[in-house]
Amino acid sequence: MKQFTSVHDVADVETLVKEALNLKSNPYSDKQLGENKTLGLVFLNPSLRTRLSTQKAAINLGMSVMVMNMDKDGWALETQDGVVMNGTTVEHIREAAAVMGQYCDILGLRSFPKLKDREEDYSEDFFNKFVSYCGVPVVSLESATRHPLQSLADLVTIKETWKGEAKPKVVLAWAPHVKALPQAVPNSFSEWMCKAQELGMVDFTIAQPEGFELHEGFTPGAKISHDIDEALAGADYVYVKNWSSYSSYGQVLPYPEGWMMNNEKLKLTNDAKVMHCLPVRRDLELSAEILDGPNSLVIHEAGNRLWAAQAVLKDLLQNLS
Amino acid sequence: MKQFTSVHDVADVETLVKEALNLKSNPYSDKQLGENKTLGLVFLNPSLRTRLSTQKAAINLGMSVMVMNMDKDGWALETQDGVVMNGTTVEHIREAAAVMGQYCDILGLRSFPKLKDREEDYSEDFFNKFVSYCGVPVVSLESATRHPLQSLADLVTIKETWKGEAKPKVVLAWAPHVKALPQAVPNSFSEWMCKAQELGMVDFTIAQPEGFELHEGFTPGAKISHDIDEALAGADYVYVKNWSSYSSYGQVLPYPEGWMMNNEKLKLTNDAKVMHCLPVRRDLELSAEILDGPNSLVIHEAGNRLWAAQAVLKDLLQNLS
Amino acid sequence: MKQFTSVHDVADVETLVKEALNLKSNPYSDKQLGENKTLGLVFLNPSLRTRLSTQKAAINLGMSVMVMNMDKDGWALETQDGVVMNGTTVEHIREAAAVMGQYCDILGLRSFPKLKDREEDYSEDFFNKFVSYCGVPVVSLESATRHPLQSLADLVTIKETWKGEAKPKVVLAWAPHVKALPQAVPNSFSEWMCKAQELGMVDFTIAQPEGFELHEGFTPGAKISHDIDEALAGADYVYVKNWSSYSSYGQVLPYPEGWMMNNEKLKLTNDAKVMHCLPVRRDLELSAEILDGPNSLVIHEAGNRLWAAQAVLKDLLQNLS
Repeated sequence: MKQFTSVHDVADVETLVKEALNLKSNPYSDKQLGENKTLGLVFLNPSLRTRLSTQKAAINLGMSVMVMNMDKDGWALETQDGVVMNGTTVEHIREAAAVMGQYCDILGLRSFPKLKDREEDYSEDFFNKFVSYCGVPVVSLESATRHPLQSLADLVTIKETWKGEAKPKVVLAWAPHVKALPQAVPNSFSEWMCKAQELGMVDFTIAQPEGFELHEGFTPGAKISHDIDEALAGADYVYVKNWSSYSSYGQVLPYPEGWMMNNEKLKLTNDAKVMHCLPVRRDLELSAEILDGPNSLVIHEAGNRLWAAQAVLKDLLQNLS
Repeated sequence: MKQFTSVHDVADVETLVKEALNLKSNPYSDKQLGENKTLGLVFLNPSLRTRLSTQKAAINLGMSVMVMNMDKDGWALETQDGVVMNGTTVEHIREAAAVMGQYCDILGLRSFPKLKDREEDYSEDFFNKFVSYCGVPVVSLESATRHPLQSLADLVTIKETWKGEAKPKVVLAWAPHVKALPQAVPNSFSEWMCKAQELGMVDFTIAQPEGFELHEGFTPGAKISHDIDEALAGADYVYVKNWSSYSSYGQVLPYPEGWMMNNEKLKLTNDAKVMHCLPVRRDLELSAEILDGPNSLVIHEAGNRLWAAQAVLKDLLQNLS
Repeated sequence: MKQFTSVHDVADVETLVKEALNLKSNPYSDKQLGENKTLGLVFLNPSLRTRLSTQKAAINLGMSVMVMNMDKDGWALETQDGVVMNGTTVEHIREAAAVMGQYCDILGLRSFPKLKDREEDYSEDFFNKFVSYCGVPVVSLESATRHPLQSLADLVTIKETWKGEAKPKVVLAWAPHVKALPQAVPNSFSEWMCKAQELGMVDFTIAQPEGFELHEGFTPGAKISHDIDEALAGADYVYVKNWSSYSSYGQVLPYPEGWMMNNEKLKLTNDAKVMHCLPVRRDLELSAEILDGPNSLVIHEAGNRLWAAQAVLKDLLQNLS
């Protein structure tokens, strides 16, 4: 790989998943690979799991890590071309990205959407400009529309835990929230599950109330339902997640009762494992009884973020020119 | 040790003190011990000495370190169980702690008291929940009621510098301040000195104005005085520190003149060495003339934070399962 | 060197420049030199290039790095002696600096001027006190009046790229900005170029509108012009930079048209290479067409920050007592 910004950057998804599981068994086997290589992690937004798991992955590979909290330790970046920079932005992304690329062999970037202008967010203007100007391979630490390190960890978790003969039924289930959240995690999860479905690894369904349909570019081949109970029937994995509306962009539309995942809902499934990318709002998105019970995979899944990141960084290191 | 949150976690205090002094002579002798081990430092409050000395201690032991400024680079954590998380807290400590434990072999945690609800602070609810959910050994970087890495460094400093035949008289002396400060440092210092007194290492007195008595659980066997001049008589070490009231919880009560430590007070002592955990308010808690004079141990004491942390981390590494 | 706070700390500027270029060819040749040595980077202000390039330089030398964002992860420092610390400053620089020196072999410090009191800023009171109290060698990461790591990188860039027979004409050209900026970068650049001129390496001119003259202590031997077009004539390097007034201290005085560097101005030069320390305001200080064109050295110059820092750290490491 030359970059890791979506599933489309991955030549062979199954091999990458296997690599992650291999690294979980042998975390330090590639420690020479990262010698004298530096990973720069650039955050424009808060981060816990991604911050720590990606650092640890780099350390396991023998890399050095430098963290740049651009939102706190740096300044506001300009992305528009052709503007006279006499306002509040201090540096253009053309310079900022290029400079960071001078000191790092690989860069990670987190940049959330503003949820105000759909076209702007979905153009991934900021992210793509960073990629194009920095001059080194970029790993997405979550962009406006995708979170591929999370999705890879999710697929790794399903692959690792599924012991059935047939392929598992995986349901992405919309859940309530008090804030308007990006579509990045569900877009990305759907994109990876659709790819996994294409490869015969899973059977994939998305359930959400009307008005919360994801952009169809992220859901090729997915079964789509507005009936949560129907969707959950026979599910082996339920991936719970809130997102704001794509069609009424960034809004929290009114939604019917019954979309919080709890033990009652669980009865409709095939004793499904329950997943969530975290952070999760207890008893709003997902019941505490599930989170603290035997069906929850959320901590295990978060643990796998490390091996997903390590597999990606290993691949990028091997392809450094 | 399986954790380091108070003196009660330490099986043999004298051996730990000796280990710290051994490491001071041979800082890099255990560099293989921390190979492929990662320390995560989680700060919910500012930190200078603790932040740097604990990092350096881990580096000396060959560990990797990841820092998580949860208050700035993360988000607000929920600690209550059974609540619907539809407010301002973004993640429950059950998940946040468990996830951090996935990426780290040992975790350090700093979490100050709010000084509003005594019962809540003294229950160490947040700290204990973190310990119980994270699944790896925890080092306190200062909790609501204790600062054991500081206290260990203090005892190391006394042990290192005391050349007398009899055991030294150590006085914890309350001092003025403009802000309401936690009782964590004096609680912890007292707890360690009471233990040291029990072991025949020191003779321990606490002096504070009326109304500033510490919780008696932290002062078993300590002589307690409301007369600073009487307490200082014959002292070999004076540990100066402000704290807010425990009985009138978190308040700065009116206090009589004469509690700032200065050269005049020093004359009452046995040419005592003066200690302070820092940061110190010059000429409010402690006179500049003492801080800049030959009796001050404050920088030496801060330097010993490194060896205290290294002794603790070494012990925890040796006991990792 | 025992410290690196200005060109005056450097015994032999030409050798240091050569060392930087040697390290650029052999980045990892001195990796044992930094073994068990720790660099502490103390920031009182934001930083991107300096933060990352200095970290990477230390890593290349085998050092460990600890970053202390004193403005965010720490607290306000007192610098005045003889004051009762009953206000908002939490710790005196005497203690804070001395403590950081306990945990680090070399310290880097960034501390901007306030641009309110010229005498205070130009006394470098804060910076000098830090140097004098910390007890270990200090590298300036930019002080109130100087940015020597930047200036060294600038000289390295000129040395590296100049292929002419005669010495190049270097022009420091004032440029417009919307904010009042410190004089640190132009002071320091001028100081280094004046030294280079003395050594026969360059021919140096400063151009600025009336009222923006730098303190003459930084410009010994420099040609000084108020006519930008005249100054640019035959220039081989144009170093574009805004600064606020020294005489009307910290103010942005009215200035005539024609001080932004653009392609039209470039025609006046000897096809000059254009430099800037970054961050740069596009189309305000310097035109986008130059920044994106073949005459710009700004990214190359930022890349050389790494080798400048590495040469300085290497020298300091070799002279650690």
